[in-house]
Amino acid sequence: MKRSLVIQGFFYYNKAMKSGSLFVISGPSGTGKGTICKHLIRRIDAELSVSMTTRIPRAEEVEGVSYFFVTDADFDKEISEGGLLEYANVYGNRYGTPKAPVCAHLKNGKDVILEIDIQGALQVKQNFPEGIFIFILPPSIEELRQRIRGRGSETDASIALRLSEARKEIEFIREYDYYVINDVLEDAVANVEAITRAVKARVDAESLTILEQYR
Amino acid sequence: MKRSLVIQGFFYYNKAMKSGSLFVISGPSGTGKGTICKHLIRRIDAELSVSMTTRIPRAEEVEGVSYFFVTDADFDKEISEGGLLEYANVYGNRYGTPKAPVCAHLKNGKDVILEIDIQGALQVKQNFPEGIFIFILPPSIEELRQRIRGRGSETDASIALRLSEARKEIEFIREYDYYVINDVLEDAVANVEAITRAVKARVDAESLTILEQYR
Repeated sequence: MKRSLVIQGFFYYNKAMKSGSLFVISGPSGTGKGTICKHLIRRIDAELSVSMTTRIPRAEEVEGVSYFFVTDADFDKEISEGGLLEYANVYGNRYGTPKAPVCAHLKNGKDVILEIDIQGALQVKQNFPEGIFIFILPPSIEELRQRIRGRGSETDASIALRLSEARKEIEFIREYDYYVINDVLEDAVANVEAITRAVKARVDAESLTILEQYR
Repeated sequence: MKRSLVIQGFFYYNKAMKSGSLFVISGPSGTGKGTICKHLIRRIDAELSVSMTTRIPRAEEVEGVSYFFVTDADFDKEISEGGLLEYANVYGNRYGTPKAPVCAHLKNGKDVILEIDIQGALQVKQNFPEGIFIFILPPSIEELRQRIRGRGSETDASIALRLSEARKEIEFIREYDYYVINDVLEDAVANVEAITRAVKARVDAESLTILEQYR
């Protein structure tokens, strides 16, 4: 019994040394990718990627948790040093995904979840093709229209714009590894969780190192 | 609301038309692949593959459920017509996996679970490479020894033979897509189930047909 415990201890130690995976959760605006990530992070052992921004922090925001707050000069430096997995300019403020903290988590065997729009995800894929790219779809365009309308903060014109944007964005699903339809939230979260489990169960060069324990 | 239901109905109709997948659950003797399949079939909507055999039916066995019972001549005919995904001779009786019922289920959108030893799985991979091959591992060789000993029906020599066989078989894990360690049964079943869910969520040529509903 003691021997079995020692062997199992050794085994789990080795398992823990396996690198983590970067799960990129992406989709058109209004598909609920943020809500899915919020539920997912409670169910799996993973870290949320923290963005870098040149925006002024709001009162409740915490450095390194809400965002990494930096100057424009710092942001430029990150770009020139290849330190960002993706970046974009939104209404004059700059946002990006720093590569170093993501890689540090992965190296420590932790999975990382990155919630991001389609444009960002496509950039991440260029810079980090080994990520797992998951596309969140609405049940239908009609349902997406109702969800955006339900927010109450959009004019008819802006709803139409968002839907036409969504239609175009959905074509990029070809660049992704998996897709999940967010019809019933609970099911969508379960499906994304299943994908994270399955990815860890893949037979690849790294998982083959476990063979040593059976020789 | 009505319109949304109609659209969703159409959507689910289309989803149902997606082909099923063949999940090949395989591993050395004593790893519990049979028990995993028994639990899995209750949790996912799939059919168990039924083998063909030249063995005499036992009293409780049902044609087409336990096995397809055939003559030696029938079995030869199946082989010559390429009708078997794999076959083997065990103590003078012949066993094989007929291809036709598997393909019929897949075409109807049903997943199929095939529980089989390593030799059989490797043959299936030759004949049906689009299957999903899942290798069930024991937590350790020591644990496998204890499980086989626990059955009480094996001599020390036959236990040693099985373990040496298992060690050799585990090397074939490279040919598989996924591996699952059967330490706690419940976790192992959940992991296999997660793999089946993730496979259905893959972006591939067939799943891209859903794009039409968003155009």
